[in-house]
Amino acid sequence: MHQKNPSAYDLLKEITLSDLKKVDDIILSLAKSHVDIIPTVTEHLMSAGGKRIRPIITIACANMIGIYNSTDVMKMAAAVELIHTATLFHDDVIDNSDLRRGKKTANNIWGNKVAILLGDFLLSHAFQLMVDSKNIMALDLLSKTSIALTESEIWQLEMLGDATTNMDRYLKLIRGKTAHLFATACSISALLQEDVGQYFQSLYEFGMNLGILYQIVDDILDYSAVNPKFGKVLGGDLLEKKITLPLIKLLEDADEDNRAMVISSFESDVPDIEMVLKLMGKYKSIEQSKKIASSYAAKCTACLNNIPSNAVKSKLLDLVNFLVYRCY
Amino acid sequence: MHQKNPSAYDLLKEITLSDLKKVDDIILSLAKSHVDIIPTVTEHLMSAGGKRIRPIITIACANMIGIYNSTDVMKMAAAVELIHTATLFHDDVIDNSDLRRGKKTANNIWGNKVAILLGDFLLSHAFQLMVDSKNIMALDLLSKTSIALTESEIWQLEMLGDATTNMDRYLKLIRGKTAHLFATACSISALLQEDVGQYFQSLYEFGMNLGILYQIVDDILDYSAVNPKFGKVLGGDLLEKKITLPLIKLLEDADEDNRAMVISSFESDVPDIEMVLKLMGKYKSIEQSKKIASSYAAKCTACLNNIPSNAVKSKLLDLVNFLVYRCY
Repeated sequence: MHQKNPSAYDLLKEITLSDLKKVDDIILSLAKSHVDIIPTVTEHLMSAGGKRIRPIITIACANMIGIYNSTDVMKMAAAVELIHTATLFHDDVIDNSDLRRGKKTANNIWGNKVAILLGDFLLSHAFQLMVDSKNIMALDLLSKTSIALTESEIWQLEMLGDATTNMDRYLKLIRGKTAHLFATACSISALLQEDVGQYFQSLYEFGMNLGILYQIVDDILDYSAVNPKFGKVLGGDLLEKKITLPLIKLLEDADEDNRAMVISSFESDVPDIEMVLKLMGKYKSIEQSKKIASSYAAKCTACLNNIPSNAVKSKLLDLVNFLVYRCY
Repeated sequence: MHQKNPSAYDLLKEITLSDLKKVDDIILSLAKSHVDIIPTVTEHLMSAGGKRIRPIITIACANMIGIYNSTDVMKMAAAVELIHTATLFHDDVIDNSDLRRGKKTANNIWGNKVAILLGDFLLSHAFQLMVDSKNIMALDLLSKTSIALTESEIWQLEMLGDATTNMDRYLKLIRGKTAHLFATACSISALLQEDVGQYFQSLYEFGMNLGILYQIVDDILDYSAVNPKFGKVLGGDLLEKKITLPLIKLLEDADEDNRAMVISSFESDVPDIEMVLKLMGKYKSIEQSKKIASSYAAKCTACLNNIPSNAVKSKLLDLVNFLVYRCY
């Protein structure tokens, strides 16, 4: 890790902690039900200890533009986290995952049926939360985000194993499947301001670039993570026939022979991960991908130009840089 | 069938047909995407030829209270149908179904992953449609319905194999999993009237009773259907360890020995469907269940007391009776 302890992430988590706890309380209160399994599974997921990056940035962005201790913001953060959580439940069924961050997945313990339906239940509650706040602009943002997210995940399935996937298509994909929800998380609180137009677009673009950066780094870690906290198999994307940035870079830069070897490995049922990793070393594909991630960090910073400097803003900018160099 | 040709259902479908086609167009236009598989799968489902009972009653109920040719109503009907369709996609994955109404299911052709994500995509579009209409009351109705529906489906999983399920629990379950969406389908157009309170509650209760009736008849047909259009295995619910009304009636009425035989068959992995059907004949469980369905038809009629008589109202009341005696 580049950062000394505590990291920019730790610092931001610390200043948002009391609000974060209230976000958890909102989600847990929605999971109350005469159906016993609903709170049980939801609590299991909440205790699995994800990074909570989305609610943290929703609260921090609200603070940055001068909104503090707002129940409306906490409900917004809960709605965004509920969409993310519903996605996790369905992703784990789709990917047939047994573990997430070292804990058994819901589909593993309670079966696919419960995981699918609980995802639907939590997604519906995300909308209900914003209905209760009577915030039609927030509902618009959330439903468009949910559409973009699912559309992109279907596109990702369609693209599996397609070695012609290029940088443009990759960026379009990760905008939809990851960055859209980050953009929503960052900008949603601006809808509460009297002059919505003042900061909304800046925060939205900030979140979009942050989401792209976040996903690129995730895809880099898939080929380079050494920290067990990352909790995934090295080269997992290659095994699943997903083309991501490091592989796109490698295919762009490799000579004809090496390129043919990589494509044939990518298309095979037992890809030679060692060989691909070695060639990524030779052609500096990871370093080049990191450079691209860094360029999105610069875009993030530029997006906040029209927002007055304050303590939270500088912590958010530190977080951006931390996310480029994160190891898990 | 009790009805002569054309049935009350055919007649109602006929008068709502041009609006129904526009509902289809709305749904198909939402499925337009750069991701080829999305329109393909959606068109497959639309062409599978379900009964379209929900959009028919949404349009008919709107007509009954004096709203004709309303684009807002068609969007509402599309939103309700999208929630139903999303549920079908997920149900077929959950039940591992290969066929629906004689056509291959989406999960069968394109796999569970596509079916799960497309369900999410269509559910999100249901909300987006009402966001575009800026109708917060409709959004409230839809999100509460979607929550009730998924909560009840999870409850149904929890109750599988539980022979102590009684009439109260059964009615609570089918209210959530079926009747709630019927209530929404019937009442949603009343939200467009200047005086929402005038008919909303009557239509909502009408739909709730209609949905209960509809599910009871479905559960009766599971033990008694002779029409191949029903397209399911006789005794399928028994095989899946679901307790429904005919079995509840049988367990209520059978003597101790017969009751013990039925329970042991219900709890076994290879239930003796022949024996259960024979005992249902002896104790008239199907006839008794039909009587209960009929009592809900009477409730439906009573709910419409405060709505002035007109041609559509009498056709809707004919539909109610048709649904009690439907064979598929």
